[in-house]
Amino acid sequence: MNINIKKAQKKKSKPDHTILGFGKYFTDHMFTMEYTEQAGWINPQTIPFDDMAMSPSTTVFHYAQSVFEGLKAYINNQNEVVLFRPYQNARRFQKSCLRMAMPTIPEDDFVKAISTLVKIDKDWIPTQEGTSLYIRPFMIAKDEILGVHPSKTYQFIIILSPVGHYYPKGIKPISISINPIYSRSFFGGTGDVKCAANYSISLLAQKEAKEKGFDQVLWLGGKEHNIITEVGAMNMMFVINNEIITPKLDGTILAGVTRDSVITLLREWGYTVIERDMTVDELIHHLMNKSVQEAFGTGTAATISPVGMIEYKGTHYLISENIGVLSKRIYDTLNMIKLKTGSVHPDWVHLVK
Amino acid sequence: MNINIKKAQKKKSKPDHTILGFGKYFTDHMFTMEYTEQAGWINPQTIPFDDMAMSPSTTVFHYAQSVFEGLKAYINNQNEVVLFRPYQNARRFQKSCLRMAMPTIPEDDFVKAISTLVKIDKDWIPTQEGTSLYIRPFMIAKDEILGVHPSKTYQFIIILSPVGHYYPKGIKPISISINPIYSRSFFGGTGDVKCAANYSISLLAQKEAKEKGFDQVLWLGGKEHNIITEVGAMNMMFVINNEIITPKLDGTILAGVTRDSVITLLREWGYTVIERDMTVDELIHHLMNKSVQEAFGTGTAATISPVGMIEYKGTHYLISENIGVLSKRIYDTLNMIKLKTGSVHPDWVHLVK
Repeated sequence: MNINIKKAQKKKSKPDHTILGFGKYFTDHMFTMEYTEQAGWINPQTIPFDDMAMSPSTTVFHYAQSVFEGLKAYINNQNEVVLFRPYQNARRFQKSCLRMAMPTIPEDDFVKAISTLVKIDKDWIPTQEGTSLYIRPFMIAKDEILGVHPSKTYQFIIILSPVGHYYPKGIKPISISINPIYSRSFFGGTGDVKCAANYSISLLAQKEAKEKGFDQVLWLGGKEHNIITEVGAMNMMFVINNEIITPKLDGTILAGVTRDSVITLLREWGYTVIERDMTVDELIHHLMNKSVQEAFGTGTAATISPVGMIEYKGTHYLISENIGVLSKRIYDTLNMIKLKTGSVHPDWVHLVK
Repeated sequence: MNINIKKAQKKKSKPDHTILGFGKYFTDHMFTMEYTEQAGWINPQTIPFDDMAMSPSTTVFHYAQSVFEGLKAYINNQNEVVLFRPYQNARRFQKSCLRMAMPTIPEDDFVKAISTLVKIDKDWIPTQEGTSLYIRPFMIAKDEILGVHPSKTYQFIIILSPVGHYYPKGIKPISISINPIYSRSFFGGTGDVKCAANYSISLLAQKEAKEKGFDQVLWLGGKEHNIITEVGAMNMMFVINNEIITPKLDGTILAGVTRDSVITLLREWGYTVIERDMTVDELIHHLMNKSVQEAFGTGTAATISPVGMIEYKGTHYLISENIGVLSKRIYDTLNMIKLKTGSVHPDWVHLVK
C-alpha cells in the first residue's frame, strides 16, 4: 500500500492539555481510502482533516453498517512515538468487518495507515502524564441506495484526537449500576465485535444511569439475563478471595486488548484468573459478604477504572473509596510498558518509525 | 412549524418506471431540520436534494445513533396524493427516538414535513400499477465528539424515492431460510424499534442466505433461540387450519403498520388471528403435515410477500408456488384502500392537500 500524502496548508492551534477531555479536538490530518467491489481498496492517502460530502441516502445513515477501533499513541521516555499492541486492533477490526459483512483490511496496511498518519501529526501527541493521542480507525458503508443489503462501496478513515488525563484529579473509583432490564447484546448477535450498532443500543441505559448518579452501566447477559458481562466501554474484573474472576468470552462481550494484557500480566505474577460466567446473584452475595476485594474495568480509554460502588435494584454495595493495590499495580505496569519501552513486554510496544 | 421552502433551480430528469427498483433514485428536494438542546427543533425547510458536509467525527458514523421510518405516497384514482396511515409512522418514530435516547418530533410536524415535501415533488410519484413514492424520514446524531453518550445535536431529514413494482413480473412467492445461529434482537434490546443498528446486525445472515439462494432470513428469537420472530423487513403470518398465527409483539419484533392493518382486516372478515409464540419445531411440524395453507410477510416495501418455501437446517419445505387465496385478497384490498379512497377504511388514507 502506497500512501499519498497531502499536507494541510494551514495548521490548527493546539488546545492546552488541561482542556482536552476525550475525543473533542482533532489533529490537522486524517487518513482515508475507498473500497469498491471491482477495484478493492483504492486511493490510500492522508489529507487535511475536513468535512466529507455525503449523500443523505448513504447506507451508514440508514443501516449503521459501520465498525471502528480505538487505540492510543504515546511519546515514550526516549522521545519515540509508540503504539500499544496495534496488531491486536488490526485483527479485531478484521473480525468486526467480517461480522458486519464488510471488506477487511490487511493487518500490515491497517498498522501502516495508522503509523503514517500519527507520524505526520506527531506534534499533536500530548506528553503530560496520563495524556495520549487517541486513534480512531473506522469504516463506513458508502452506497447511496436504500435497499437493505451489504453496501458495495466503503470508506476507511482514521482520525486522531489528543486526549487528556482520564483522571485529571487523580484516580477516583467509579460507580456502576447493574441494569436489570436492558440488554446490550445476546447470543448470535454482534456483542463481540466493535460495530457502531452496539453503542447506539447502549445509550438509553447509560443516560438513565447517569441521571441516577452512576458513572456506567454494568450489563447483564445470558439466556436468563442474569450473567455479569461488561461495562460497554470496559471489560470487568473482580478480585474475590485473592482470585481474579472475569466474564468469559462467550460471544456477547468484546475481547478487549487491555483485558488480554491484564490477564497475561496477572498470570505472570502468579495470580489465578478465572474466565467464567458469574451470575448477578453470586456477585451480590460476594458484595454482601465483603469478599469482593477489588473490582475494576479494563479498556483503552482509562486503561484501568477501579469500581468503588455497584448498585443493583436500588441497593448500593460499597467496595472501596480508593484504588485497590492490585488495580494500582496493573495500572502502573501498563503505563510503564508504554512509556519505558523495553522494561517489560517489549513485544507489546510498536515503535512508529 | 413553519417550513421554509427553497426550490431547486435545476430539476433532474425522471427515470423510466421500468428501471426504478427500490431506493435508487431520489427526487429534486429533501426536508431537513436541526435540533440543539438549547433551541429544540430549528430551521425546518425543504431544500434541493444534495450532499451534506459532515465531519468524520460525527456521532452517527461511530455509534449508529440513528432511527428511520418508511412509508409510501400514491396517486389515487381521483388524482389525489395519498399517504397510508402516516400517523402510525409518526408514533413509531417517536417510540424509536425515545429508545435510542433521541429527541422526538410532534406527530403533526412529522406528517406536515412529509406532506409538504411530497407536494413539492408530486411530479415524481409514479402512477404505473404497483409503483409508488417511497418516503424515508430519518434522524441522525450530529455531535462531532467521540465520547460514548447521546448526542446533543441531531438532524431530521426526509428523502423521497420513486420505486418500481415490487413484483415486476407478477407476484412470485419468495423463499426464506430460518437461521439457526444468528440473532437479530433479544429481550431488553431494540428489536421493536426502527433503529439503524438493527439492520446492520442482520446483514451477514442476509448475505449468507442470498448466497445459498434464499430471498430472506426468518429470524429465531426467545431465550432458547427457538421462537419464530420476523423477516427483518417484514412481519410473518401463517395460515394454519384456517386460523392465522402471527408472532406476538414481545418486544423483540417490529410492530409493523402493514401487520396491524392486515390483522384488522382479517378480524373484520371473520378470521381468527392469534398473536402468540410459535416454536420452530411447531412450524416444522405443520410444514411436514402440509397444514400450513399459506404463509406471507407483511411490510411497507411489498405490502404482502407470499412465502413459497421455507428452509431449515438444509431441508426445504414447500408451501405453494403461487400466491394463496387469502394473501391475494389482503393484497388486493390494501391496494384498493390506497387507490380507491373511501371504499374501505377511509380512516387509513391521509390526503396530502
